[in-house]
Amino acid sequence: MCEANAYLKEGETEVMFMESVDVIEPYENGLKLIDIFGMQKFIQAKIKDMTLLNHRIVLEKIDNPL
Amino acid sequence: MCEANAYLKEGETEVMFMESVDVIEPYENGLKLIDIFGMQKFIQAKIKDMTLLNHRIVLEKIDNPL
Repeated sequence: MCEANAYLKEGETEVMFMESVDVIEPYENGLKLIDIFGMQKFIQAKIKDMTLLNHRIVLEKIDNPL
Repeated sequence: MCEANAYLKEGETEVMFMESVDVIEPYENGLKLIDIFGMQKFIQAKIKDMTLLNHRIVLEKIDNPL
């Protein structure tokens, strides 16, 4: 299975935001993430970077969403 | 291996842009993609959506990059 874990960058640390993410849909003011079980989360953040082989997505909060 | 293929949306069709993408790094004016062989491509586009279980990333051109 090729899902990835999404971490939220908070200062120097990274906090697990959602495990086993399948789908990512960017919107104007944030991201919708859907995991392999169909659970959805919305976060006012953008993708900082991702490495699929490491199953790793790093998110960064948007301070002033549109 | 959990790499994905990146497709560029052009109107109603999707054109293969890069195979076997590992790393995605968003920038102000586009995306840097790196494949599993270390090849890099930069494109003035944003992520439209992605489904990791389907190994599928869909990109959309940015008309007016910053």
